[in-house]
Amino acid sequence: MPEIRIGMVGYQFMGRAHSNAFRQVGPFMGPKLVPRLKAICGRNAPAVERFARQFGWEDVETDYRRLVEREDIDLIDIGSPGDTHAPIAIAAAQAGKHVLCEKPLANTLAEARAMWEAVKKARVHHMVAFNYRRVPAVALARDLIQKGRLGRIYHFRGVYLQSWLLDPKLPRFWRMDRKVAGSGALGDLGAHVIDLARHLVGEISEVCADLETFTRERPLPENPKKMGKVTVDDMASALLRFENGARGTLEVTRFATGRENANRFEINGEKGALWFDLEDMNRLHFFDNATPEARTRGFADVLVTSGAHHPYWKHWWPGGHIIGWEHSFTHEVYDFLEGIARGRNAQPDFRDGARTQAVLESIAASAENRRWAKVPHVA
Amino acid sequence: MPEIRIGMVGYQFMGRAHSNAFRQVGPFMGPKLVPRLKAICGRNAPAVERFARQFGWEDVETDYRRLVEREDIDLIDIGSPGDTHAPIAIAAAQAGKHVLCEKPLANTLAEARAMWEAVKKARVHHMVAFNYRRVPAVALARDLIQKGRLGRIYHFRGVYLQSWLLDPKLPRFWRMDRKVAGSGALGDLGAHVIDLARHLVGEISEVCADLETFTRERPLPENPKKMGKVTVDDMASALLRFENGARGTLEVTRFATGRENANRFEINGEKGALWFDLEDMNRLHFFDNATPEARTRGFADVLVTSGAHHPYWKHWWPGGHIIGWEHSFTHEVYDFLEGIARGRNAQPDFRDGARTQAVLESIAASAENRRWAKVPHVA
Amino acid sequence: MPEIRIGMVGYQFMGRAHSNAFRQVGPFMGPKLVPRLKAICGRNAPAVERFARQFGWEDVETDYRRLVEREDIDLIDIGSPGDTHAPIAIAAAQAGKHVLCEKPLANTLAEARAMWEAVKKARVHHMVAFNYRRVPAVALARDLIQKGRLGRIYHFRGVYLQSWLLDPKLPRFWRMDRKVAGSGALGDLGAHVIDLARHLVGEISEVCADLETFTRERPLPENPKKMGKVTVDDMASALLRFENGARGTLEVTRFATGRENANRFEINGEKGALWFDLEDMNRLHFFDNATPEARTRGFADVLVTSGAHHPYWKHWWPGGHIIGWEHSFTHEVYDFLEGIARGRNAQPDFRDGARTQAVLESIAASAENRRWAKVPHVA
Amino acid sequence: MPEIRIGMVGYQFMGRAHSNAFRQVGPFMGPKLVPRLKAICGRNAPAVERFARQFGWEDVETDYRRLVEREDIDLIDIGSPGDTHAPIAIAAAQAGKHVLCEKPLANTLAEARAMWEAVKKARVHHMVAFNYRRVPAVALARDLIQKGRLGRIYHFRGVYLQSWLLDPKLPRFWRMDRKVAGSGALGDLGAHVIDLARHLVGEISEVCADLETFTRERPLPENPKKMGKVTVDDMASALLRFENGARGTLEVTRFATGRENANRFEINGEKGALWFDLEDMNRLHFFDNATPEARTRGFADVLVTSGAHHPYWKHWWPGGHIIGWEHSFTHEVYDFLEGIARGRNAQPDFRDGARTQAVLESIAASAENRRWAKVPHVA
Repeated sequence: MPEIRIGMVGYQFMGRAHSNAFRQVGPFMGPKLVPRLKAICGRNAPAVERFARQFGWEDVETDYRRLVEREDIDLIDIGSPGDTHAPIAIAAAQAGKHVLCEKPLANTLAEARAMWEAVKKARVHHMVAFNYRRVPAVALARDLIQKGRLGRIYHFRGVYLQSWLLDPKLPRFWRMDRKVAGSGALGDLGAHVIDLARHLVGEISEVCADLETFTRERPLPENPKKMGKVTVDDMASALLRFENGARGTLEVTRFATGRENANRFEINGEKGALWFDLEDMNRLHFFDNATPEARTRGFADVLVTSGAHHPYWKHWWPGGHIIGWEHSFTHEVYDFLEGIARGRNAQPDFRDGARTQAVLESIAASAENRRWAKVPHVA
Repeated sequence: MPEIRIGMVGYQFMGRAHSNAFRQVGPFMGPKLVPRLKAICGRNAPAVERFARQFGWEDVETDYRRLVEREDIDLIDIGSPGDTHAPIAIAAAQAGKHVLCEKPLANTLAEARAMWEAVKKARVHHMVAFNYRRVPAVALARDLIQKGRLGRIYHFRGVYLQSWLLDPKLPRFWRMDRKVAGSGALGDLGAHVIDLARHLVGEISEVCADLETFTRERPLPENPKKMGKVTVDDMASALLRFENGARGTLEVTRFATGRENANRFEINGEKGALWFDLEDMNRLHFFDNATPEARTRGFADVLVTSGAHHPYWKHWWPGGHIIGWEHSFTHEVYDFLEGIARGRNAQPDFRDGARTQAVLESIAASAENRRWAKVPHVA
Repeated sequence: MPEIRIGMVGYQFMGRAHSNAFRQVGPFMGPKLVPRLKAICGRNAPAVERFARQFGWEDVETDYRRLVEREDIDLIDIGSPGDTHAPIAIAAAQAGKHVLCEKPLANTLAEARAMWEAVKKARVHHMVAFNYRRVPAVALARDLIQKGRLGRIYHFRGVYLQSWLLDPKLPRFWRMDRKVAGSGALGDLGAHVIDLARHLVGEISEVCADLETFTRERPLPENPKKMGKVTVDDMASALLRFENGARGTLEVTRFATGRENANRFEINGEKGALWFDLEDMNRLHFFDNATPEARTRGFADVLVTSGAHHPYWKHWWPGGHIIGWEHSFTHEVYDFLEGIARGRNAQPDFRDGARTQAVLESIAASAENRRWAKVPHVA
Repeated sequence: MPEIRIGMVGYQFMGRAHSNAFRQVGPFMGPKLVPRLKAICGRNAPAVERFARQFGWEDVETDYRRLVEREDIDLIDIGSPGDTHAPIAIAAAQAGKHVLCEKPLANTLAEARAMWEAVKKARVHHMVAFNYRRVPAVALARDLIQKGRLGRIYHFRGVYLQSWLLDPKLPRFWRMDRKVAGSGALGDLGAHVIDLARHLVGEISEVCADLETFTRERPLPENPKKMGKVTVDDMASALLRFENGARGTLEVTRFATGRENANRFEINGEKGALWFDLEDMNRLHFFDNATPEARTRGFADVLVTSGAHHPYWKHWWPGGHIIGWEHSFTHEVYDFLEGIARGRNAQPDFRDGARTQAVLESIAASAENRRWAKVPHVA
């Protein structure tokens, strides 16, 4: 069985999720290229060594430059904070490695464009880890829309609601620091919503937005008696116009009491509608406006767990035995590896990542200027 | 406009519900016979007079015998406790009045049979007030089943869950007294479930049941320091066999913490399934197993509120503007009056009431004998 | 029992809803002033006479000027199209009648201000029929917020989604004509959302909005072969800033396939959150972030139907026996009449109506100018 | 790190689920004893070898007798059909191995008793794989009940609804053969419901039941033109009495159109209630009847995904990032291994398995005799 040797940067939340995906994709999904967990890279040597033992990485690096230069590595997977994406990805591409990069692709559109240029030039495979495209219910939604089951689309309504910042005593860590994270809820959560909107509805042409930071100072982790400035947004909302005439709304926040991971969308079209909620991710709700019998129309509560009928499911369990959040990464890695094996880039690629970045940057600009902003084109 | 003159017995809960129905059916539904609220009957003169003024009854009686003999009355509506149903209904039929009777039809099968014989002999119109047949979602369910949309039926699963007896300090009033009420949850709630089961699935041939009284003594209303015996069941559960081979379960209780009026059923057939919950009564959930596309199958959450498509709805509001529990009585009265106008008896009639009584009595017998009981036939 | 004599203008959808409210409030809620359905006014004499007979109005008028001048009328209820509200209401106030007016209060802020001045000057009682404040679940939401159960509010998320304009063959009637209706979804549905936002969260200071008309021509009702221009919006979306720092989003549309009457809001505060959906209007979902036990926190699905505990419910049925959309009008009329009896104006009054109008007008201006707009003050 | 060497029998559905659990428990949960996937056993050598490569088993056996005798194995995990459980488990115990056995423990109570005697005598650790006890929401339910949050329990209502037998063309494989499977829905699904009932409510003293086989002949897999007899039940329903006075109902079926894996229960007690549905397994619905404020009582929709507050969750992801069905096995294996490391048997053990078997056997006897049956005691 041909193998593909993985080098990964980052060993926190995303490091765990991606390591699991590379471990699980072999036994469950049987990709043509079997991933080998070659080396994991992090700056804190003891911590990264512990992580390597835990998840079965063969080797450890503490400098990403050494990692990308290793000849025994074919693919670099980037799961470190946003400000590190561009240098690592560009170095990896220049070293001829395929690149899988966490979202958002970069902290600025300029970085994202540079990354997209670098991978194009290096002719390596590249993907941005917008894992929610690989939730079976979302993949089904995409297919229904592509097959015209919604007809002309009128509305996109997307929110991503979390609440983990409610406590004002929560320390100011890197996600609240604009230099490292680029933005707050906007880049972290809004990037997912924008990617899904583009994936399901189409390109966004104009936006008008509002950003707010509800808690502007937080205790410093190193000294909780001192306060540090929060330099990113706690929430972002936006009105969207799509190239195809659809209208949208977006709201992302870390202050939505009662919601933990409510990545939800509803799409209403001429012939049908659908809605999805990540907190109940094994279901898709589909309203078929084209069924002949009007009196039984209603949103069908579809359990998207059938091996015979639903995307990705033949690799898992009998119908009704639900999968979890982590499986979206396994599917993502599978599609990326299959793309490499067939010489076809999987989506969303770095161009997609840059386009999403263009929307995010327009949202920030609109909020600054208090008027609508046109989304710049990424070719 | 021809009118029909109503005489009603009982002015409590059911008195209010039925008075409202007779008041509302005219303006909203426009029946051929317009009801005139002629006289209301109750034993407590001042209370019944107050009620008459409140709901617009023209006259008052304190003895049902006087009421049924009045020549200016065409229809007797019985909403008093169960032990009074048989004498009133039989007297009314003998006096040539049409009879609408609250459920359960009687406290015993013998009484119910006698009532059925009396109305048959008198050739008057008769109906039992199983109002839930007239909820639009239930009427839609019935029609889907009649049209074969479920195919052969395998399962009926019916519960009616309430919780108002949880507090042991609640006084022992007539509903806990077997002499007046006949039974407890079984007759009060179980009668509804049995009627729906018969209406939707078919006749029940055999039952096996369990009854229990969780709180066997309660304070007397007249003196809360004294305790009185609860002589009826607090809950009943039963296994059901239908003549057509379907199997069912039933559970009714007044001790279901968290549930107030959860009259729910689910029916699974070869070609489809449906479920309903009275606490969300404007919806029917329908699973169509016969749609060609398996991947979008799911229970459709049908808002049964379309004037163009749904039973009874053209008389009310635009789609989505929901109706309440009380409207089921207005529909019931409408169907009864339309039946009288056309000379056709509306269902469920007294034979239906007696058949449901036969099932209830078999459930009680089975619980007593701790084995299956055959349901006696009512011709 | 003292009575109050009602004169009503309009006998269509709102005419039915208000007539029902005036009929039902007496028997069920027992107000101090019992309404007498004195005269109903409409331009089509045979139609209005038919309606009067149906709902029990004593008399008929075909000119509102005659109606407001009648000495045997105490209260004018206006349910005709938006362009008629100002002249009728002002004439009624000048004639010393109390005024209940359908929403939106007027087609322009200038009209609304004039109406508010007129009722103030005439010292009559006045109310705008934002009936959703009187849904028990909404009234409970208001009380929880007023009592501080949500603490500081961060987010308001309001939508009102309908789909009845999806069919392009639906004729262009008065609701698609700006001269009569003022606006489309914005005034019809958005007014409700704005009123609820103000009622629950507080005054809105700034808005940024988008309007769209998806179907710009429709067949004329008088000649379906000819097309007429749709001069109102099919949908409106907006970002909202509240005076108290909360941020909001609003979306209203008549093109939301799958949704019929989805008037929904969610409010997230520091100490709690709640959400509501008019299509399931007997429930409120409340998340209490202040309960000591974190592990059992979740949105409580509260059936707001308890006579002992919930607003308006003691007048209706036992817990769990749900009420419908029309009951909100009965509650509204009750509160208005009780206010008159006690000499205290009920809310929302014409000043509220004018303030909501100010927000609607700012939304329209913002959409026109493609930038944020400040909401003008109404004193 | 001390390791524990696993030998597994069976490589189909349960083989995949258990292999995954042993692979995942190390990296995610960090048990004291790290499992080593030593040998997998199946009768079809090429198939079992393929499976071993796929999931990382070091070695392969084709005869369970050889497996249990291997000195390099500490724990035998049995996932083969029901008729093989007793011989394998007894042999394993006699060889001094710990035993994890799939449910139901055996095909008969006699076998189950023998297994329980064998492990007791051998003083090995033993567990029955009732994995649903390890769903975090179920573990939370158990803890709430144990802490008295429901008070005295009145009702248990358990169903396990599937629909995979609806198609009459589905071939008759081992699960429809009484000799191999012992029973049909009863043992496969009913065993889960009984185990949960015992775990959450207490021991069952008496049962009354009904069994039915809707499709009595099915095509033989080896020759679809020939029909074979289905010798097991397609559905089972039962009334239950618990030793503590609670009453219950149970229904399990493979003919519930629209339901795929609906393992649901509701429990109503004096002080609270809860319900759970495996198809939405990351939630528990809890009604707290003891909160002081009656007007906000409702079933709380608790997302059981908080590392800080919920069972097993600290090992997984941030709150709201849901887990799947397979994780219940990982938790189960973790608890079994931790029990071994600490010298304390984890539950449910073989005595629990035998007690559940006693209930299943009583259900079958009751259905046969058409009357109530007492559940025999297992000491």
